[in-house]
Amino acid sequence: MMLHFHLQTTDGAARAGTLVTAHGDVPTPTFMAVGTAGTVKAMTADAVRATGAKIVLGNTYHLMLRPTAERVARLGGLHKFMDWPGPILTDSGGFQIMSLAKLRKLDEAGVTFQSHTDGSKHFLSPERSMEIQHLLDSTITMVLDECTKFPATHDEAAASMRLSTRWAKRSRAAFIPRDGYGQFGIVQGSVYEDLRRESAAALCDLDFEGYAIGGLAVGEGQAAMFDMLDITTPLLPAEKPRYLMGVGTPDDLLGSVARGVDMFDCVMPTRAGRTARAYTAAGVLNLRNARFIDDSSPLDPTCACLCCTRHTRAYLHHLFRCEEMLGPMLLTTHNLTYYQSLMIAARAAILAGNYNEFSTRTRVGWASGDAG
Amino acid sequence: MMLHFHLQTTDGAARAGTLVTAHGDVPTPTFMAVGTAGTVKAMTADAVRATGAKIVLGNTYHLMLRPTAERVARLGGLHKFMDWPGPILTDSGGFQIMSLAKLRKLDEAGVTFQSHTDGSKHFLSPERSMEIQHLLDSTITMVLDECTKFPATHDEAAASMRLSTRWAKRSRAAFIPRDGYGQFGIVQGSVYEDLRRESAAALCDLDFEGYAIGGLAVGEGQAAMFDMLDITTPLLPAEKPRYLMGVGTPDDLLGSVARGVDMFDCVMPTRAGRTARAYTAAGVLNLRNARFIDDSSPLDPTCACLCCTRHTRAYLHHLFRCEEMLGPMLLTTHNLTYYQSLMIAARAAILAGNYNEFSTRTRVGWASGDAG
Repeated sequence: MMLHFHLQTTDGAARAGTLVTAHGDVPTPTFMAVGTAGTVKAMTADAVRATGAKIVLGNTYHLMLRPTAERVARLGGLHKFMDWPGPILTDSGGFQIMSLAKLRKLDEAGVTFQSHTDGSKHFLSPERSMEIQHLLDSTITMVLDECTKFPATHDEAAASMRLSTRWAKRSRAAFIPRDGYGQFGIVQGSVYEDLRRESAAALCDLDFEGYAIGGLAVGEGQAAMFDMLDITTPLLPAEKPRYLMGVGTPDDLLGSVARGVDMFDCVMPTRAGRTARAYTAAGVLNLRNARFIDDSSPLDPTCACLCCTRHTRAYLHHLFRCEEMLGPMLLTTHNLTYYQSLMIAARAAILAGNYNEFSTRTRVGWASGDAG
Repeated sequence: MMLHFHLQTTDGAARAGTLVTAHGDVPTPTFMAVGTAGTVKAMTADAVRATGAKIVLGNTYHLMLRPTAERVARLGGLHKFMDWPGPILTDSGGFQIMSLAKLRKLDEAGVTFQSHTDGSKHFLSPERSMEIQHLLDSTITMVLDECTKFPATHDEAAASMRLSTRWAKRSRAAFIPRDGYGQFGIVQGSVYEDLRRESAAALCDLDFEGYAIGGLAVGEGQAAMFDMLDITTPLLPAEKPRYLMGVGTPDDLLGSVARGVDMFDCVMPTRAGRTARAYTAAGVLNLRNARFIDDSSPLDPTCACLCCTRHTRAYLHHLFRCEEMLGPMLLTTHNLTYYQSLMIAARAAILAGNYNEFSTRTRVGWASGDAG
């Protein structure tokens, strides 16, 4: 049986479910920590597990260049390589090629590009992306798509979405089904309702194990993103998981869960952790701020992570001031714990039928803090 | 009762004992991980504990500048600040002023210097160094000394050593005795036997809780260092712990334990870990070396640390190639575990009366590996 999804309950459009995979179950809604190059930055795999994470994301673009998919396969697959026996979702590589690679050229066949690290030339097609993700032993394989640039005219967005649809068909044909593994299609269409509808319909015909919503959080703003979710999630089958790619802030997550999204990934908690920014129940704190120099209180008194139970804000401030690696390590630990705890609390609220109250209460908390 | 030392057994000049402190017992010989600025670089305190470390070192120079000793005291002391309830030894600050600070000026009263980070002006005297270490709540306070430059003429070394002796007297007078805490004197005298004798005799008159051997590992070479140990350790009271400052390689440690040293500190295992160099039972490996790119074996098959039990050399190579923080994190974990395991094995061999065989066998292991 392929990877599948149990929808446990709904509260409005918000959903609580369980993703059942070859590498373990994932209660949803869930946030996937980003493990770009086979490591969640600044974290041991044990530390990632301790945040409550059940599934992580790997980036095909980075891994195909270093250490290469063939090498990961020879070494026993990405799970073993990075000490993560749990589920792993890999993206298709398309997004990073467009944002990182040099001299890229896209046509019907695929994308030719040069590595951003050594200038070496590479080609990625839907078939090759599926092969790479297979070699990585990815639990959830993403189709190769073109993430439509923003802003795009209706014509541009339509042409881009239709290319992604053709690539989705080729990706589906190239995917090798295995028990407990699955492949997700990606809805495109920019901010145009008719295009989102066309994309979703075409992908549903291909009967993927799950559906991602792509091309959002690319500059359109939260309101436009939520509008697109309001339009798109009802077009997707209720019994399949829904994944909003590359999103977002804690507030983005709450609003998207309310609109029926089950899965997220984002570099925000890890990247913020390396730049002294902490997500807390009282909002965002910048630990470089001099006002923390004598602050003997924990970073987030409501948090049970290593960083919050063992150290003071003054210590974290000191670590960032001295550019000690432990600063990013502790703050990444906290931020990922915060994101996981938020998803766990959201799930509990959905199961209890009070997601809206939970969501409002959480937002009030962010606004009430002295965070700035 | 002050900090004290139980000498359990000797094997030749090698000693197995226990240091009994207010913050816990330390079996010796022991290696102290260096936690310069209130953190062992790239390690959580839990990770340091997991290496087997029982005592860590803090640097007065760094801590007096950032976050300042008064601030650490207000925040509850260095143990709480860095989540290390176990024993902490702090150096006096003198060595780092000479190696790091700008515009330093030394006279009988003490040292005036400018911070290497912000140019701020500071003064350190024996009395102020004792006060700072007291504010930090250091378990073992070191006297302020001048680490004699190398090479030094006999006249230079004598003048420097005699200044250190006068400062040791002032340091002893300024030290506030507390149960389970202690203060160590530091033998100087460069490579001159008569000066080492004079220094040791003067310090023994002050009846410190322990004795450090300073001014070695500053360029004189291992043979000269061992010669000085052969001369110096017999001058020190058997019932007090002996600490060789800033030493060294695993081979330095084995040779120094054989000469009656009980305690060590060195940045080597931590610094090497950040630069891809691993200390193993088969010698030193540089994980950046391309020959590890497909190496699916563990870093050191004889090691039980997280790095060696969960990951391959190929993964470590990949992490350093991609400049991922996890590379330094895992390799520091391993190197510190290697140093601790070496001291634990040395202690067991001394207790079993076969330290020389152990030492020879260990050196053969280093030479036999394909390490280079």
